[in-house]
Amino acid sequence: MSLIVKKFGGSSVADDNKLRNVARIVTQSRADGHQVVVVVSAQGDTTDDLLEKAAALNESASRREMDMLLACGEQMSAALLAITIEKMGCPVISLTGWQAGMQTDSNHAAARIKDIDPERVRMELDKHNIVVIAGFQGINKFGDVTTIGRGGSDTTAVAFAAALKADLCQIYTDVDGVFTADPRIVPDAKKLDAISFDEMLELASLGAQVLASRSVEMAKRLRVKLEVLSSFRECPGTIVKEVVKMENMQVSGVARDNNVARIALIGLKDVPGVAARVFSLLAQHKINVDIILQSIGRKDAKDISFTVAAGNLAEARALLEEHRESLDYEKLEVSDRISKVSAVGAGMVNNPGVAARMFEALAAAGINIQMISTSEIKVSVLIDLADSDRAVQVIHQEFFGG
Amino acid sequence: MSLIVKKFGGSSVADDNKLRNVARIVTQSRADGHQVVVVVSAQGDTTDDLLEKAAALNESASRREMDMLLACGEQMSAALLAITIEKMGCPVISLTGWQAGMQTDSNHAAARIKDIDPERVRMELDKHNIVVIAGFQGINKFGDVTTIGRGGSDTTAVAFAAALKADLCQIYTDVDGVFTADPRIVPDAKKLDAISFDEMLELASLGAQVLASRSVEMAKRLRVKLEVLSSFRECPGTIVKEVVKMENMQVSGVARDNNVARIALIGLKDVPGVAARVFSLLAQHKINVDIILQSIGRKDAKDISFTVAAGNLAEARALLEEHRESLDYEKLEVSDRISKVSAVGAGMVNNPGVAARMFEALAAAGINIQMISTSEIKVSVLIDLADSDRAVQVIHQEFFGG
Repeated sequence: MSLIVKKFGGSSVADDNKLRNVARIVTQSRADGHQVVVVVSAQGDTTDDLLEKAAALNESASRREMDMLLACGEQMSAALLAITIEKMGCPVISLTGWQAGMQTDSNHAAARIKDIDPERVRMELDKHNIVVIAGFQGINKFGDVTTIGRGGSDTTAVAFAAALKADLCQIYTDVDGVFTADPRIVPDAKKLDAISFDEMLELASLGAQVLASRSVEMAKRLRVKLEVLSSFRECPGTIVKEVVKMENMQVSGVARDNNVARIALIGLKDVPGVAARVFSLLAQHKINVDIILQSIGRKDAKDISFTVAAGNLAEARALLEEHRESLDYEKLEVSDRISKVSAVGAGMVNNPGVAARMFEALAAAGINIQMISTSEIKVSVLIDLADSDRAVQVIHQEFFGG
Repeated sequence: MSLIVKKFGGSSVADDNKLRNVARIVTQSRADGHQVVVVVSAQGDTTDDLLEKAAALNESASRREMDMLLACGEQMSAALLAITIEKMGCPVISLTGWQAGMQTDSNHAAARIKDIDPERVRMELDKHNIVVIAGFQGINKFGDVTTIGRGGSDTTAVAFAAALKADLCQIYTDVDGVFTADPRIVPDAKKLDAISFDEMLELASLGAQVLASRSVEMAKRLRVKLEVLSSFRECPGTIVKEVVKMENMQVSGVARDNNVARIALIGLKDVPGVAARVFSLLAQHKINVDIILQSIGRKDAKDISFTVAAGNLAEARALLEEHRESLDYEKLEVSDRISKVSAVGAGMVNNPGVAARMFEALAAAGINIQMISTSEIKVSVLIDLADSDRAVQVIHQEFFGG
């Protein structure tokens, strides 16, 4: 008998039939002899509807009250799923975040998990109940309801899997698993049977949206074995674990992120400390910088280019213009018509040819590379947005064949 | 500075404009220097929508899970009201039932209030917050969410008013207060400035729907001063308190209840214990009996007529037919085409003429009385349903004039 934590997102519980589908998956797993804990998100558009309702009344409502409001979305879907499971004759109980022992800090809307007291959940499992937990939410030390922000339900599932020492944490999605590329761009992309945490992290942070990177980080840190699988098709998904034997596969996937903007500062004085001033200014305003390129084309002057999330472009630009005098640059150029395409693979550590093969494939397709960034397990290139799909296709073709 | 508890029902918070209206009432009261605690029901049709959603999935969902689901209705309206009050620049915090300290027994869907721990509410009031409490809900000793059933939000308001030793508990409705009769039946019915708990109880249990009788009982027992008033018109409502000086007014109101059915058992043996057997059988099945009439028209036989709530008629009839042999009656007759009309007034204790005046007025209007029931402060008659409106009108005319 294993203990399995299963997470279902908002689209998997969006209506009555989908709730029944989830109830079938869950009760089948219990019939197979497992102890089952389920973490659910709010149904379909519930969260957006509540956000809209609140915005109509007060566009700057406090995060504390927004958490109070939004947490109901998950509480309702947990209760509705429990009601559906009851109908199938299975003992079940739904629990809110606070009932399930999810303790967080007080950073409303983006709270961090501090601890999980799994006593209640264990007690319900001992009573042979399926336990349905409202994801995305917890309670702070003052007894206030909190929500834990982006990727909250994935992270909730991983946190409970760790606290309960579960054998497996299954993240159900609307795709069959993790693919070598987005099947909408590369129709012959292949589902991976397994992938390492580090690769999954690169893929997650690079735009593959199957798993919130925060939940992967937590799973890696707390050694929780993950599986990404479909809630609509019965087939094995992709296992995410510490070490995956790649059998000579250098690259495990190709990802892309179009939510990127590039900023270039032209004609900076070539004196020590210039770059530090630029990036500490941005850091003070919590703007994350990704790829950085520094060129020294001219005498006594240099250019610095870097990327930020597209959503940060306006603020970053305003900041840099505001400090033009102290930073002392000649010209500021920005572009948000760019895309970051990456090849990810633990295998490339021992195969230094990956980057070269990738660049050659792009060159053969006439795609110009604007910037390059590499880590031990990935190579990212910045290209024109118009070339994005084609870049993913030719890189995938290069490493995975026809 | 007074501490005032204000309760707003579902129709008073049904949409954005109504929420803003409630926020205005509440912030005005605070601007007048009062400490304000607000108890809210779920918005408009929220509860019905949730009930419908659950029924589509499982028509016999557990009451525990239904409570988990339904409690969200009040939690959402509490958060939305707080968000609306924030917009008006007033410090405010919303609390669920459990956060506010509402402790109940475990009788899900109809839990009884066991205790209120007002510490959190007091703390928030000390911080100068308006406190918005989700009505209708609490928590049991296992940490499960409960709902307290019919009249839940009125009762929540009274319970907090008592626990906080509030100066006044205001129940906002869509009418201006308690009237001498239902203004839809008697257009010239008058609003009462004040009424005693006992009269209010008779009126509430007799079909006047401004206040749940359970909340009036609690207010009487815990000595909470109530006011029933309009959430849409700014004018004083009706005060409900222990003793009201009636200034020669014998009758304070006329009420009617069409939700009544009459059962007659004809030809029962005239031996001791017959009536006891009938009514203990019904009591065992939790069927409340209201008016009872016993006649001894024939030798060795008697008839017993009594009324039950219309909703209990089918069950009561089936029970009595099932036990026909042991009860040994000749015939069973039922009718649900009847109405109970009552005149209520603390003044009638010292004015024995009230019943006679009422019967005469009905007789003059040609309305036949089927059964009569009296208490110290009310006279009720059972009449044909078709005469109901007219009966209310002529009795009101008799005691309140033209």
